[in-house]
Amino acid sequence: MTIGTIAFAGAGLDRADHLRSDPEAMAGLMDWRARLLKLDGLDPVIDPDGNLGWGTLADAAEDAELVFLGLTGGKACFAEVSPALLGSVAPANPRLWAAMSALESAELATYGTARALVDWHARHRYCARCGNPTVLAKGGWQRSCTNQVCKAEHFPRVDPVTIMLVEHEGRLLLGRQPHFPPRRFSALAGFVEPGESIEEAVEREVKEEAGVTVRDVTYVGSQPWPFPSSLMIGCHSHATSAELEVDKTELEEADWFTRDEVAYAMGGAEDGRFIAPPPQAIAHHLVKWWLAR
Amino acid sequence: MTIGTIAFAGAGLDRADHLRSDPEAMAGLMDWRARLLKLDGLDPVIDPDGNLGWGTLADAAEDAELVFLGLTGGKACFAEVSPALLGSVAPANPRLWAAMSALESAELATYGTARALVDWHARHRYCARCGNPTVLAKGGWQRSCTNQVCKAEHFPRVDPVTIMLVEHEGRLLLGRQPHFPPRRFSALAGFVEPGESIEEAVEREVKEEAGVTVRDVTYVGSQPWPFPSSLMIGCHSHATSAELEVDKTELEEADWFTRDEVAYAMGGAEDGRFIAPPPQAIAHHLVKWWLAR
Repeated sequence: MTIGTIAFAGAGLDRADHLRSDPEAMAGLMDWRARLLKLDGLDPVIDPDGNLGWGTLADAAEDAELVFLGLTGGKACFAEVSPALLGSVAPANPRLWAAMSALESAELATYGTARALVDWHARHRYCARCGNPTVLAKGGWQRSCTNQVCKAEHFPRVDPVTIMLVEHEGRLLLGRQPHFPPRRFSALAGFVEPGESIEEAVEREVKEEAGVTVRDVTYVGSQPWPFPSSLMIGCHSHATSAELEVDKTELEEADWFTRDEVAYAMGGAEDGRFIAPPPQAIAHHLVKWWLAR
Repeated sequence: MTIGTIAFAGAGLDRADHLRSDPEAMAGLMDWRARLLKLDGLDPVIDPDGNLGWGTLADAAEDAELVFLGLTGGKACFAEVSPALLGSVAPANPRLWAAMSALESAELATYGTARALVDWHARHRYCARCGNPTVLAKGGWQRSCTNQVCKAEHFPRVDPVTIMLVEHEGRLLLGRQPHFPPRRFSALAGFVEPGESIEEAVEREVKEEAGVTVRDVTYVGSQPWPFPSSLMIGCHSHATSAELEVDKTELEEADWFTRDEVAYAMGGAEDGRFIAPPPQAIAHHLVKWWLAR
Protein backbone atom coordinates (compact mmCIF):
# COMPACT_ATOMS: atom_id res chain seq x y z
CA MET A 1 0.00 0.00 0.00
CA THR A 2 1.30 3.45 -0.89
CA ILE A 3 0.39 6.82 0.57
CA GLY A 4 -0.87 8.39 -2.68
CA THR A 5 -0.40 11.92 -3.92
CA ILE A 6 0.91 14.42 -1.41
CA ALA A 7 1.12 18.19 -1.58
CA PHE A 8 4.15 19.57 -3.51
CA ALA A 9 4.64 16.39 -5.56
CA GLY A 10 3.28 15.85 -9.07
CA ALA A 11 4.15 19.02 -11.01
CA GLY A 12 2.89 18.85 -14.57
CA LEU A 13 6.02 20.54 -15.94
CA ASP A 14 8.54 18.84 -18.20
CA ARG A 15 11.83 19.86 -16.58
CA ALA A 16 13.56 19.50 -19.97
CA ASP A 17 16.97 18.91 -18.43
CA HIS A 18 18.67 18.75 -21.85
CA LEU A 19 17.80 22.40 -22.53
CA ARG A 20 19.42 23.70 -19.33
CA SER A 21 22.97 23.06 -20.56
CA ASP A 22 22.25 24.62 -23.96
CA PRO A 23 22.67 28.41 -23.66
CA GLU A 24 21.35 28.98 -27.19
CA ALA A 25 18.19 26.97 -26.51
CA MET A 26 17.74 28.77 -23.18
CA ALA A 27 18.04 32.17 -24.85
CA GLY A 28 15.55 31.05 -27.51
CA LEU A 29 13.00 30.16 -24.82
CA MET A 30 13.16 33.61 -23.28
CA ASP A 31 10.83 35.35 -25.69
CA TRP A 32 7.38 36.95 -25.46
CA ARG A 33 5.68 33.56 -25.24
CA ALA A 34 7.51 32.56 -22.05
CA ARG A 35 5.56 32.67 -18.79
CA LEU A 36 6.84 34.20 -15.54
CA LEU A 37 5.47 32.87 -12.26
CA LYS A 38 4.08 35.70 -10.14
CA LEU A 39 5.56 35.73 -6.66
CA ASP A 40 5.00 38.09 -3.75
CA GLY A 41 8.29 37.74 -1.96
CA LEU A 42 8.46 33.95 -1.91
CA ASP A 43 4.68 33.51 -1.63
CA PRO A 44 2.47 32.55 -4.57
CA VAL A 45 0.11 35.05 -6.16
CA ILE A 46 -3.29 33.42 -6.69
CA ASP A 47 -5.38 34.70 -9.61
CA PRO A 48 -9.19 35.24 -9.33
CA ASP A 49 -9.84 31.69 -10.62
CA GLY A 50 -7.86 30.21 -7.73
CA ASN A 51 -4.89 29.30 -9.95
CA LEU A 52 -1.24 30.32 -9.83
CA GLY A 53 -0.79 33.77 -11.37
CA TRP A 54 1.52 34.03 -14.40
CA GLY A 55 2.85 37.02 -16.31
CA THR A 56 5.45 37.45 -19.03
CA LEU A 57 9.21 38.03 -18.84
CA ALA A 58 8.49 41.74 -19.36
CA ASP A 59 7.24 41.75 -15.74
CA ALA A 60 10.65 40.77 -14.36
CA ALA A 61 12.99 43.35 -12.86
CA GLU A 62 15.68 44.35 -15.36
CA ASP A 63 18.50 42.96 -13.21
CA ALA A 64 16.61 39.86 -12.05
CA GLU A 65 18.00 36.38 -12.55
CA LEU A 66 15.59 33.94 -14.21
CA VAL A 67 15.17 30.30 -13.25
CA PHE A 68 13.87 27.91 -15.91
CA LEU A 69 11.17 25.74 -14.28
CA GLY A 70 10.33 23.67 -17.35
CA LEU A 71 7.90 23.40 -20.24
CA THR A 72 4.13 23.10 -20.19
CA GLY A 73 1.91 23.11 -23.27
CA GLY A 74 4.92 24.16 -25.37
CA LYS A 75 5.55 27.22 -23.22
CA ALA A 76 8.67 27.84 -21.17
CA CYS A 77 8.01 28.70 -17.52
CA PHE A 78 10.36 30.85 -15.47
CA ALA A 79 10.56 32.31 -11.96
CA GLU A 80 12.39 35.47 -11.00
CA VAL A 81 15.10 35.81 -8.37
CA SER A 82 14.00 39.29 -7.45
CA PRO A 83 16.78 41.61 -6.22
CA ALA A 84 14.51 42.42 -3.24
CA LEU A 85 14.84 38.81 -2.00
CA LEU A 86 18.60 38.68 -1.85
CA GLY A 87 19.99 37.54 1.46
CA SER A 88 16.55 37.51 3.08
CA VAL A 89 14.89 34.69 5.00
CA ALA A 90 11.17 34.18 4.39
CA PRO A 91 9.48 31.71 6.73
CA ALA A 92 6.13 30.05 5.94
CA ASN A 93 3.25 32.33 6.93
CA PRO A 94 -0.57 32.18 7.26
CA ARG A 95 -1.11 33.66 3.76
CA LEU A 96 1.05 30.90 2.34
CA TRP A 97 -0.90 28.20 4.18
CA ALA A 98 -4.14 29.60 2.76
CA ALA A 99 -2.68 29.44 -0.76
CA MET A 100 -1.50 25.89 -0.11
CA SER A 101 -5.08 24.84 0.67
CA ALA A 102 -6.49 26.64 -2.37
CA LEU A 103 -4.12 25.46 -5.11
CA GLU A 104 -4.70 22.34 -7.14
CA SER A 105 -2.02 19.64 -6.71
CA ALA A 106 0.09 20.11 -9.88
CA GLU A 107 0.12 23.89 -9.38
CA LEU A 108 1.26 23.55 -5.78
CA ALA A 109 4.10 21.32 -6.99
CA THR A 110 5.15 23.89 -9.60
CA TYR A 111 5.06 26.60 -6.96
CA GLY A 112 7.09 24.45 -4.54
CA THR A 113 9.79 23.86 -7.15
CA ALA A 114 9.97 27.58 -7.91
CA ARG A 115 10.04 28.56 -4.25
CA ALA A 116 12.86 26.14 -3.39
CA LEU A 117 14.99 27.29 -6.35
CA VAL A 118 14.38 31.04 -6.02
CA ASP A 119 15.05 30.91 -2.29
CA TRP A 120 18.28 28.98 -2.87
CA HIS A 121 19.50 31.57 -5.41
CA ALA A 122 18.58 34.41 -3.03
CA ARG A 123 20.64 32.90 -0.20
CA HIS A 124 23.61 31.61 -2.24
CA ARG A 125 25.23 34.63 -3.91
CA TYR A 126 28.86 33.79 -3.10
CA CYS A 127 31.19 30.88 -3.62
CA ALA A 128 31.47 28.78 -0.45
CA ARG A 129 34.92 27.66 -1.58
CA CYS A 130 36.59 31.01 -2.28
CA GLY A 131 34.17 33.77 -1.24
CA ASN A 132 33.83 35.41 -4.66
CA PRO A 133 30.47 36.24 -6.29
CA THR A 134 28.66 33.51 -8.22
CA VAL A 135 26.34 33.81 -11.23
CA LEU A 136 23.30 31.79 -12.28
CA ALA A 137 24.07 29.00 -14.77
CA LYS A 138 22.23 26.15 -16.56
CA GLY A 139 18.84 27.83 -16.44
CA GLY A 140 19.09 28.31 -12.69
CA TRP A 141 19.97 24.71 -11.79
CA GLN A 142 23.53 25.75 -11.00
CA ARG A 143 25.56 28.75 -9.81
CA SER A 144 29.14 29.20 -11.00
CA CYS A 145 32.00 31.00 -9.29
CA THR A 146 33.17 34.09 -11.20
CA ASN A 147 36.74 33.68 -9.88
CA GLN A 148 38.51 32.14 -12.88
CA VAL A 149 41.01 30.33 -10.65
CA CYS A 150 38.24 28.69 -8.63
CA LYS A 151 35.37 28.17 -11.11
CA ALA A 152 33.51 26.04 -8.52
CA GLU A 153 30.05 24.85 -9.50
CA HIS A 154 27.30 24.90 -6.89
CA PHE A 155 23.97 23.07 -7.08
CA PRO A 156 20.62 23.70 -5.37
CA ARG A 157 20.40 21.89 -2.06
CA VAL A 158 17.94 19.10 -1.36
CA ASP A 159 18.15 18.10 2.31
CA PRO A 160 16.86 14.61 3.10
CA VAL A 161 14.77 14.50 6.29
CA THR A 162 13.42 11.32 7.86
CA ILE A 163 9.92 11.53 9.33
CA MET A 164 8.72 8.43 11.10
CA LEU A 165 5.81 6.62 12.59
CA VAL A 166 6.90 4.74 15.69
CA GLU A 167 4.49 2.03 16.84
CA HIS A 168 4.33 0.00 20.06
CA GLU A 169 1.56 -2.46 20.94
CA GLY A 170 -0.94 -0.69 18.69
CA ARG A 171 -0.14 2.83 19.88
CA LEU A 172 1.60 5.57 17.91
CA LEU A 173 4.37 7.88 19.15
CA LEU A 174 3.76 11.53 18.26
CA GLY A 175 5.47 14.66 19.47
CA ARG A 176 5.11 18.40 19.39
CA GLN A 177 7.78 20.91 18.50
CA PRO A 178 7.72 24.20 20.42
CA HIS A 179 6.67 26.19 17.31
CA PHE A 180 3.61 24.02 16.50
CA PRO A 181 0.10 25.51 16.80
CA PRO A 182 -1.52 24.67 20.18
CA ARG A 183 -2.30 20.97 20.76
CA ARG A 184 -0.89 19.90 17.38
CA PHE A 185 1.11 16.64 17.50
CA SER A 186 2.92 15.09 14.54
CA ALA A 187 5.45 12.42 13.59
CA LEU A 188 9.03 12.82 14.84
CA ALA A 189 11.48 14.01 12.18
CA GLY A 190 15.11 14.92 11.65
CA PHE A 191 17.75 15.53 8.99
CA VAL A 192 19.77 12.63 7.60
CA GLU A 193 23.42 13.28 8.48
CA PRO A 194 26.56 12.50 6.48
CA GLY A 195 27.58 8.87 6.99
CA GLU A 196 24.22 7.31 7.77
CA SER A 197 21.54 5.46 5.81
CA ILE A 198 17.87 6.45 5.95
CA GLU A 199 17.19 3.58 8.35
CA GLU A 200 20.05 4.61 10.65
CA ALA A 201 18.86 8.22 10.66
CA VAL A 202 15.40 7.04 11.79
CA GLU A 203 16.92 4.95 14.60
CA ARG A 204 19.18 7.79 15.75
CA GLU A 205 16.52 10.51 15.66
CA VAL A 206 13.94 8.51 17.64
CA LYS A 207 16.59 7.60 20.20
CA GLU A 208 17.78 11.22 20.49
CA GLU A 209 14.37 12.86 20.64
CA ALA A 210 12.31 10.32 22.60
CA GLY A 211 14.83 7.90 24.13
CA VAL A 212 13.17 5.02 22.28
CA THR A 213 14.93 2.18 20.44
CA VAL A 214 13.27 1.17 17.17
CA ARG A 215 13.60 -1.85 14.88
CA ASP A 216 12.21 -2.93 11.49
CA VAL A 217 12.36 0.51 9.85
CA THR A 218 10.51 0.48 6.53
CA TYR A 219 10.02 3.17 3.90
CA VAL A 220 6.49 4.40 3.23
CA GLY A 221 6.67 7.43 0.90
CA SER A 222 8.34 10.76 0.18
CA GLN A 223 7.51 14.43 -0.39
CA PRO A 224 9.41 17.52 -1.52
CA TRP A 225 8.94 20.24 1.13
CA PRO A 226 10.21 23.66 0.03
CA PHE A 227 10.72 25.26 3.48
CA PRO A 228 13.40 25.79 2.46
CA SER A 229 14.66 22.65 0.68
CA SER A 230 13.71 19.38 2.36
CA LEU A 231 13.00 15.98 0.90
CA MET A 232 10.73 14.35 3.46
CA ILE A 233 11.31 10.58 3.65
CA GLY A 234 8.40 8.92 5.45
CA CYS A 235 9.10 5.69 7.35
CA HIS A 236 7.46 3.28 9.77
CA SER A 237 9.16 1.52 12.68
CA HIS A 238 8.47 -0.53 15.79
CA ALA A 239 9.61 0.56 19.27
CA THR A 240 11.16 -2.12 21.47
CA SER A 241 9.61 -0.54 24.59
CA ALA A 242 7.11 2.21 25.47
CA GLU A 243 9.39 3.98 27.93
CA LEU A 244 10.04 7.59 26.87
CA GLU A 245 12.87 9.98 27.70
CA VAL A 246 12.00 13.15 25.80
CA ASP A 247 14.75 15.60 24.80
CA LYS A 248 13.15 18.89 25.81
CA THR A 249 15.53 20.92 23.63
CA GLU A 250 14.01 19.22 20.56
CA LEU A 251 10.43 18.45 21.59
CA GLU A 252 8.02 20.17 23.94
CA GLU A 253 6.22 16.89 24.52
CA ALA A 254 5.93 13.36 23.09
CA ASP A 255 3.50 10.59 23.97
CA TRP A 256 1.79 7.41 22.83
CA PHE A 257 -1.68 7.64 21.28
CA THR A 258 -4.20 4.83 20.79
CA ARG A 259 -5.66 3.99 17.41
CA ASP A 260 -9.01 5.49 18.51
CA GLU A 261 -7.39 8.74 19.64
CA VAL A 262 -5.50 9.00 16.36
CA ALA A 263 -8.59 8.21 14.24
CA TYR A 264 -10.62 10.82 16.13
CA ALA A 265 -8.03 13.57 15.55
CA MET A 266 -7.55 12.57 11.90
CA GLY A 267 -11.31 12.97 11.41
CA GLY A 268 -10.69 16.68 11.92
CA ALA A 269 -11.82 16.88 15.56
CA GLU A 270 -10.14 19.55 17.65
CA ASP A 271 -11.52 18.37 21.00
CA GLY A 272 -9.64 15.07 21.23
CA ARG A 273 -6.29 14.36 22.91
CA PHE A 274 -4.50 16.21 20.11
CA ILE A 275 -4.94 18.01 16.77
CA ALA A 276 -3.71 16.06 13.73
CA PRO A 277 -1.04 17.27 11.27
CA PRO A 278 -2.50 19.21 8.30
CA PRO A 279 -3.24 17.45 4.97
CA GLN A 280 -0.36 19.21 3.17
CA ALA A 281 2.18 17.50 5.45
CA ILE A 282 3.46 13.99 4.76
CA ALA A 283 2.89 13.23 8.46
CA HIS A 284 -0.86 13.42 7.77
CA HIS A 285 -0.56 10.84 4.99
CA LEU A 286 1.67 8.58 7.05
CA VAL A 287 -0.86 8.53 9.87
CA LYS A 288 -3.73 7.96 7.42
CA TRP A 289 -1.76 5.06 5.92
CA TRP A 290 -1.25 3.63 9.40
CA LEU A 291 -4.95 3.83 10.22
CA ALA A 292 -5.90 2.18 6.92
CA ARG A 293 -3.57 -0.81 7.32
CA MET B 1 13.06 -8.64 1.91
CA THR B 2 15.75 -6.05 2.60
CA ILE B 3 19.17 -5.65 1.06
CA GLY B 4 21.18 -6.06 4.29
CA THR B 5 24.29 -4.21 5.40
CA ILE B 6 26.03 -2.13 2.75
CA ALA B 7 29.43 -0.47 2.77
CA PHE B 8 29.58 2.92 4.57
CA ALA B 9 26.50 2.22 6.73
CA GLY B 10 26.63 0.88 10.29
CA ALA B 11 29.25 3.00 12.09
CA GLY B 12 29.69 1.90 15.69
CA LEU B 13 30.04 5.49 16.91
CA ASP B 14 27.55 7.24 19.17
CA ARG B 15 27.17 10.60 17.43
CA ALA B 16 26.25 12.19 20.79
CA ASP B 17 24.34 15.03 19.18
CA HIS B 18 23.60 16.65 22.57
CA LEU B 19 27.32 17.31 23.14
CA ARG B 20 27.82 19.18 19.86
CA SER B 21 25.87 22.25 21.02
CA ASP B 22 27.65 22.32 24.39
CA PRO B 23 30.98 24.17 23.93
CA GLU B 24 32.09 23.30 27.48
CA ALA B 25 31.47 19.59 26.94
CA MET B 26 33.22 19.73 23.55
CA ALA B 27 36.28 21.41 25.11
CA GLY B 28 36.27 18.77 27.86
CA LEU B 29 36.39 15.99 25.27
CA MET B 30 39.47 17.43 23.58
CA ASP B 31 42.05 16.04 26.00
CA TRP B 32 44.86 13.48 25.77
CA ARG B 33 42.38 10.59 25.75
CA ALA B 34 40.69 11.77 22.55
CA ARG B 35 41.46 9.90 19.32
CA LEU B 36 42.30 11.55 16.00
CA LEU B 37 41.53 9.65 12.80
CA LYS B 38 44.63 9.38 10.61
CA LEU B 39 44.01 10.63 7.09
CA ASP B 40 46.30 10.92 4.10
CA GLY B 41 44.65 13.76 2.24
CA LEU B 42 41.11 12.43 2.33
CA ASP B 43 42.17 8.78 2.17
CA PRO B 44 42.22 6.47 5.19
CA VAL B 45 45.49 5.33 6.76
CA ILE B 46 45.32 1.59 7.44
CA ASP B 47 47.38 0.27 10.36
CA PRO B 48 49.35 -3.03 10.14
CA ASP B 49 46.37 -4.97 11.58
CA GLY B 50 44.17 -3.81 8.70
CA ASN B 51 42.21 -1.36 10.88
CA LEU B 52 41.74 2.39 10.62
CA GLY B 53 44.78 4.21 12.03
CA TRP B 54 44.19 6.55 14.99
CA GLY B 55 46.47 9.02 16.75
CA THR B 56 45.90 11.67 19.40
CA LEU B 57 44.98 15.34 19.11
CA ALA B 58 48.68 16.14 19.50
CA ASP B 59 49.08 14.86 15.93
CA ALA B 60 46.82 17.57 14.48
CA ALA B 61 48.24 20.69 12.82
CA GLU B 62 48.19 23.63 15.23
CA ASP B 63 45.76 25.61 13.05
CA ALA B 64 43.59 22.61 12.05
CA GLU B 65 39.87 22.56 12.65
CA LEU B 66 38.62 19.45 14.45
CA VAL B 67 35.41 17.62 13.63
CA PHE B 68 33.77 15.58 16.41
CA LEU B 69 32.79 12.20 14.94
CA GLY B 70 31.27 10.72 18.10
CA LEU B 71 32.05 8.50 21.06
CA THR B 72 33.26 4.91 21.13
CA GLY B 73 34.19 3.00 24.26
CA GLY B 74 34.02 6.26 26.25
CA LYS B 75 36.56 7.93 23.97
CA ALA B 76 35.86 10.97 21.80
CA CYS B 77 36.82 10.57 18.14
CA PHE B 78 37.85 13.48 15.96
CA ALA B 79 39.01 14.10 12.40
CA GLU B 80 41.20 16.98 11.28
CA VAL B 81 40.39 19.51 8.58
CA SER B 82 44.02 19.85 7.55
CA PRO B 83 45.01 23.26 6.16
CA ALA B 84 46.56 21.37 3.22
CA LEU B 85 43.10 20.22 2.11
CA LEU B 86 41.50 23.64 1.86
CA GLY B 87 39.82 24.33 -1.44
CA SER B 88 41.10 21.10 -2.98
CA VAL B 89 39.10 18.42 -4.75
CA ALA B 90 40.09 14.80 -4.04
CA PRO B 91 38.41 12.20 -6.22
CA ALA B 92 38.22 8.51 -5.30
CA ASN B 93 41.41 6.68 -6.33
CA PRO B 94 42.75 3.10 -6.54
CA ARG B 95 44.42 3.30 -3.10
CA LEU B 96 41.08 4.28 -1.63
CA TRP B 97 39.28 1.38 -3.33
CA ALA B 98 41.88 -1.02 -1.87
CA ALA B 99 41.25 0.38 1.60
CA MET B 100 37.53 0.07 1.06
CA SER B 101 37.91 -3.66 0.41
CA ALA B 102 40.18 -4.15 3.42
CA LEU B 103 38.26 -2.32 6.14
CA GLU B 104 35.65 -4.00 8.30
CA SER B 105 32.11 -2.59 7.91
CA ALA B 106 31.82 -0.35 11.01
CA GLU B 107 35.28 1.12 10.36
CA LEU B 108 34.42 1.90 6.77
CA ALA B 109 31.30 3.71 7.99
CA THR B 110 33.32 5.76 10.48
CA TYR B 111 35.78 6.65 7.75
CA GLY B 112 32.95 7.58 5.36
CA THR B 113 31.42 9.94 7.92
CA ALA B 114 34.80 11.56 8.54
CA ARG B 115 35.58 11.89 4.84
CA ALA B 116 32.23 13.50 4.00
CA LEU B 117 32.55 16.01 6.85
CA VAL B 118 36.22 16.89 6.41
CA ASP B 119 35.74 17.33 2.66
CA TRP B 120 32.72 19.58 3.24
CA HIS B 121 34.70 21.80 5.64
CA ALA B 122 37.60 21.97 3.20
CA ARG B 123 35.33 23.18 0.37
CA HIS B 124 33.06 25.47 2.39
CA ARG B 125 35.24 28.20 3.90
CA TYR B 126 33.03 31.18 3.02
CA CYS B 127 29.45 32.22 3.60
CA ALA B 128 27.34 31.54 0.50
CA ARG B 129 24.98 34.33 1.59
CA CYS B 130 27.45 37.21 2.12
CA GLY B 131 30.90 36.00 1.05
CA ASN B 132 32.62 36.46 4.40
CA PRO B 133 34.73 33.73 6.09
CA THR B 134 32.97 31.09 8.16
CA VAL B 135 34.21 29.18 11.22
CA LEU B 136 33.59 25.65 12.42
CA ALA B 137 30.78 25.35 15.00
CA LYS B 138 28.92 22.61 16.92
CA GLY B 139 31.78 20.15 16.84
CA GLY B 140 32.02 20.42 13.06
CA TRP B 141 28.35 19.80 12.27
CA GLN B 142 27.91 23.46 11.34
CA ARG B 143 29.84 26.45 10.00
CA SER B 144 28.89 29.96 11.09
CA CYS B 145 29.39 33.22 9.24
CA THR B 146 31.80 35.58 11.00
CA ASN B 147 30.01 38.66 9.61
CA GLN B 148 27.98 39.79 12.61
CA VAL B 149 25.28 41.32 10.40
CA CYS B 150 24.81 38.04 8.50
CA LYS B 151 25.52 35.30 11.06
CA ALA B 152 24.22 32.66 8.60
CA GLU B 153 24.49 29.04 9.73
CA HIS B 154 25.56 26.43 7.18
CA PHE B 155 25.18 22.67 7.53
CA PRO B 156 27.02 19.76 5.88
CA ARG B 157 25.35 18.73 2.64
CA VAL B 158 23.72 15.36 2.10
CA ASP B 159 22.63 15.03 -1.53
CA PRO B 160 19.89 12.46 -2.16
CA VAL B 161 20.53 10.37 -5.29
CA THR B 162 18.08 7.83 -6.70
CA ILE B 163 19.59 4.64 -8.09
CA MET B 164 17.17 2.26 -9.70
CA LEU B 165 16.59 -1.18 -11.07
CA VAL B 166 14.36 -1.03 -14.14
CA GLU B 167 12.77 -4.33 -15.09
CA HIS B 168 10.89 -5.40 -18.23
CA GLU B 169 9.67 -8.94 -18.94
CA GLY B 170 12.34 -10.46 -16.72
CA ARG B 171 15.22 -8.40 -18.08
CA LEU B 172 17.12 -5.65 -16.24
CA LEU B 173 18.13 -2.26 -17.64
CA LEU B 174 21.75 -1.38 -16.87
CA GLY B 175 23.95 1.38 -18.24
CA ARG B 176 27.54 2.52 -18.28
CA GLN B 177 28.83 5.99 -17.56
CA PRO B 178 31.84 7.13 -19.59
CA HIS B 179 34.16 7.06 -16.53
CA PHE B 180 33.36 3.42 -15.57
CA PRO B 181 36.09 0.75 -15.85
CA PRO B 182 35.87 -1.19 -19.14
CA ARG B 183 32.75 -3.37 -19.58
CA ARG B 184 31.29 -2.37 -16.18
CA PHE B 185 27.52 -1.79 -16.23
CA SER B 186 25.47 -0.61 -13.28
CA ALA B 187 22.05 0.71 -12.28
CA LEU B 188 21.00 4.12 -13.63
CA ALA B 189 21.20 6.93 -11.07
CA GLY B 190 20.65 10.64 -10.66
CA PHE B 191 20.24 13.41 -8.10
CA VAL B 192 16.83 14.19 -6.65
CA GLU B 193 15.98 17.79 -7.64
CA PRO B 194 14.09 20.44 -5.69
CA GLY B 195 10.34 19.95 -6.08
CA GLU B 196 10.18 16.22 -6.73
CA SER B 197 9.56 13.11 -4.64
CA ILE B 198 11.92 10.11 -4.72
CA GLU B 199 9.47 8.28 -6.99
CA GLU B 200 9.26 11.24 -9.40
CA ALA B 201 13.04 11.52 -9.52
CA VAL B 202 13.27 7.84 -10.51
CA GLU B 203 10.69 8.33 -13.28
CA ARG B 204 12.40 11.47 -14.60
CA GLU B 205 15.93 10.07 -14.56
CA VAL B 206 15.04 6.85 -16.38
CA LYS B 207 13.10 8.86 -18.96
CA GLU B 208 15.98 11.33 -19.43
CA GLU B 209 18.81 8.82 -19.57
CA ALA B 210 17.22 5.87 -21.37
CA GLY B 211 13.96 7.20 -22.87
CA VAL B 212 12.01 4.63 -20.86
CA THR B 213 8.74 5.22 -18.96
CA VAL B 214 8.57 3.41 -15.61
CA ARG B 215 5.70 2.63 -13.21
CA ASP B 216 5.35 1.06 -9.75
CA VAL B 217 8.48 2.60 -8.25
CA THR B 218 9.27 1.00 -4.89
CA TYR B 219 12.00 1.69 -2.34
CA VAL B 220 14.52 -1.06 -1.64
CA GLY B 221 17.30 0.36 0.56
CA SER B 222 19.74 3.22 1.12
CA GLN B 223 23.46 3.90 1.57
CA PRO B 224 25.60 6.89 2.53
CA TRP B 225 28.20 7.43 -0.20
CA PRO B 226 30.89 9.96 0.74
CA PHE B 227 32.09 10.92 -2.79
CA PRO B 228 31.55 13.64 -1.84
CA SER B 229 28.23 13.65 0.01
CA SER B 230 25.53 11.44 -1.51
CA LEU B 231 22.71 9.52 0.09
CA MET B 232 22.03 6.70 -2.36
CA ILE B 233 18.33 5.76 -2.42
CA GLY B 234 17.88 2.37 -4.08
CA CYS B 235 14.59 1.69 -5.88
CA HIS B 236 12.94 -0.85 -8.16
CA SER B 237 10.58 -0.07 -11.04
CA HIS B 238 8.90 -1.61 -14.06
CA ALA B 239 9.36 -0.28 -17.60
CA THR B 240 6.24 0.02 -19.73
CA SER B 241 8.22 -0.92 -22.87
CA ALA B 242 11.69 -2.18 -23.80
CA GLU B 243 12.38 0.53 -26.38
CA LEU B 244 15.48 2.56 -25.48
CA GLU B 245 16.56 6.07 -26.46
CA VAL B 246 19.86 6.57 -24.67
CA ASP B 247 21.06 10.09 -23.83
CA LYS B 248 24.69 9.85 -24.91
CA THR B 249 25.69 12.91 -22.89
CA GLU B 250 24.81 10.97 -19.72
CA LEU B 251 25.45 7.34 -20.63
CA GLU B 252 27.92 5.70 -22.98
CA GLU B 253 25.58 2.75 -23.39
CA ALA B 254 22.48 1.15 -21.83
CA ASP B 255 20.85 -2.18 -22.53
CA TRP B 256 18.63 -4.95 -21.23
CA PHE B 257 20.23 -8.00 -19.61
CA THR B 258 18.62 -11.39 -18.95
CA ARG B 259 18.51 -12.95 -15.50
CA ASP B 260 21.16 -15.48 -16.58
CA GLU B 261 23.49 -12.77 -17.88
CA VAL B 262 23.08 -10.81 -14.65
CA ALA B 263 23.61 -13.88 -12.44
CA TYR B 264 26.75 -14.80 -14.37
CA ALA B 265 28.29 -11.33 -13.96
CA MET B 266 27.28 -11.14 -10.28
CA GLY B 267 29.12 -14.42 -9.70
CA GLY B 268 32.28 -12.46 -10.38
CA ALA B 269 32.79 -13.54 -13.99
CA GLU B 270 34.55 -11.03 -16.23
CA ASP B 271 33.93 -12.88 -19.50
CA GLY B 272 30.15 -12.44 -19.66
CA ARG B 273 28.15 -9.69 -21.35
CA PHE B 274 29.23 -7.22 -18.69
CA ILE B 275 31.14 -6.81 -15.42
CA ALA B 276 28.95 -6.31 -12.33
CA PRO B 277 29.11 -3.30 -10.00
CA PRO B 278 31.53 -3.77 -7.04
CA PRO B 279 30.28 -5.03 -3.65
CA GLN B 280 30.83 -1.62 -2.00
CA ALA B 281 28.21 -0.02 -4.25
CA ILE B 282 24.50 -0.19 -3.46
CA ALA B 283 23.93 -1.14 -7.12
CA HIS B 284 25.58 -4.50 -6.36
CA HIS B 285 23.15 -5.10 -3.49
CA LEU B 286 20.14 -4.02 -5.50
CA VAL B 287 21.02 -6.47 -8.28
CA LYS B 288 21.69 -9.24 -5.72
CA TRP B 289 18.28 -8.51 -4.16
CA TRP B 290 16.66 -8.70 -7.60
CA LEU B 291 18.27 -12.08 -8.36
CA ALA B 292 17.20 -13.48 -4.97
CA ARG B 293 13.54 -12.50 -5.31
